[in-house]
Amino acid sequence: MNADARFQALALELGHDFSGEIKIGGNYTPVVRDGQQLWVSGQIPRVGDEVHFVGAVGDVFDVTQGQQAAAICAMRALALLQRSAGSLEAITAILRITVYVRSAPTFTHQSEVADGASDVLRRVLGPQGVHTRTSVGVLQLPKGAAVELDVVAKLTEPETRGIRHG
Amino acid sequence: MNADARFQALALELGHDFSGEIKIGGNYTPVVRDGQQLWVSGQIPRVGDEVHFVGAVGDVFDVTQGQQAAAICAMRALALLQRSAGSLEAITAILRITVYVRSAPTFTHQSEVADGASDVLRRVLGPQGVHTRTSVGVLQLPKGAAVELDVVAKLTEPETRGIRHG
Amino acid sequence: MNADARFQALALELGHDFSGEIKIGGNYTPVVRDGQQLWVSGQIPRVGDEVHFVGAVGDVFDVTQGQQAAAICAMRALALLQRSAGSLEAITAILRITVYVRSAPTFTHQSEVADGASDVLRRVLGPQGVHTRTSVGVLQLPKGAAVELDVVAKLTEPETRGIRHG
Repeated sequence: MNADARFQALALELGHDFSGEIKIGGNYTPVVRDGQQLWVSGQIPRVGDEVHFVGAVGDVFDVTQGQQAAAICAMRALALLQRSAGSLEAITAILRITVYVRSAPTFTHQSEVADGASDVLRRVLGPQGVHTRTSVGVLQLPKGAAVELDVVAKLTEPETRGIRHG
Repeated sequence: MNADARFQALALELGHDFSGEIKIGGNYTPVVRDGQQLWVSGQIPRVGDEVHFVGAVGDVFDVTQGQQAAAICAMRALALLQRSAGSLEAITAILRITVYVRSAPTFTHQSEVADGASDVLRRVLGPQGVHTRTSVGVLQLPKGAAVELDVVAKLTEPETRGIRHG
Repeated sequence: MNADARFQALALELGHDFSGEIKIGGNYTPVVRDGQQLWVSGQIPRVGDEVHFVGAVGDVFDVTQGQQAAAICAMRALALLQRSAGSLEAITAILRITVYVRSAPTFTHQSEVADGASDVLRRVLGPQGVHTRTSVGVLQLPKGAAVELDVVAKLTEPETRGIRHG
């Protein structure tokens, strides 16, 4: 299986469909490319019109649920990367994920929550899913989401891939 | 009107003057360039010596006021980009804005607040104002500001522009 | 003294040893390189197995202690950069540090806390320590740390340096 097939298999396993429009919440763009870098806007655990996991981790949600929220955010980011790059096989590394965890005041397991996103990247992208990560605990997030995640990805050389624009 | 003229027109409309020194609060640098990327430090809604909009959005300020704060942050970032690049016409894309909204505990309209910055980028830069965005709700910000925003911008090829250093 | 010697001198002065393994908390990687950019994962003030400065600044810790926490984070990031690049002399600029300060609700001196990291960068890297910075006040951080910091650094041209991989 290549990365695109692994993405599809994981979407099925998670029970969510990321093949439709990826809705975003404002006057901006999901992905901007600069040479071999793809910058992806902050993703919350929204599937279609519904935001899953609205509430603070450590309060409404436990670590496992926080990881599920982080996994959906990562799948959304991968879906956007796939459309921009044509194939997830074009991704050679993830330069950064920043994982914002809406946290209860005493909750300090943001890194464990972020593992939910890291696991998705490793599982779908394999060794190309190598990434740096920053996890922080924030007071609130758009629509009250439990997790938000943004990504900067690195692509293969332009000569060796077909980029689909738009 | 080119982007620099649109910037000046919007500054007049907002009633703020961004032509003086852009003060920053510590031992760092407003802009660092790496090839075609310009990285801009976090901007709060300060004009001259005064920080406008000190307080949390959803508490002291409503969404409209939060948008005004975000607009000032974006104008400051544009002023810094203009000085570094010589002209805002040299900007070809905004790779990322991260918008930190000092939020009341139950305030979840960070994305709407960030639209205040996005609108400035679109209006001044036109299609070159295309950008990815991450909006989060934080507990506090330097000087108690309502909004902080940082930017990574992309420039035209070095051959086609005159960069002013420093 | 070159940058590596200055780093070692500052480590001695701070009384911490950064020569061992730099432990990180999850399923990710401390540093990823993209051409001349090195992206470093979020660092908390951990030395060996112990996280120093667990608590909120403005509550458990004052500004000076917050600066000490930020300094340890910056030293960890430098240690990681040194190993990835072979020498800190290969660093030509710091494109961004983002400094997350776990803050008491009314604490607004995040920028002063971040100066603790900026001073380390200036002192070790000299003029090459020039950097942009974003400082925010967050509700919580992994392991309850007082400060977290991530870095994007710029390297000299590949032809002029020897990169050690891994």
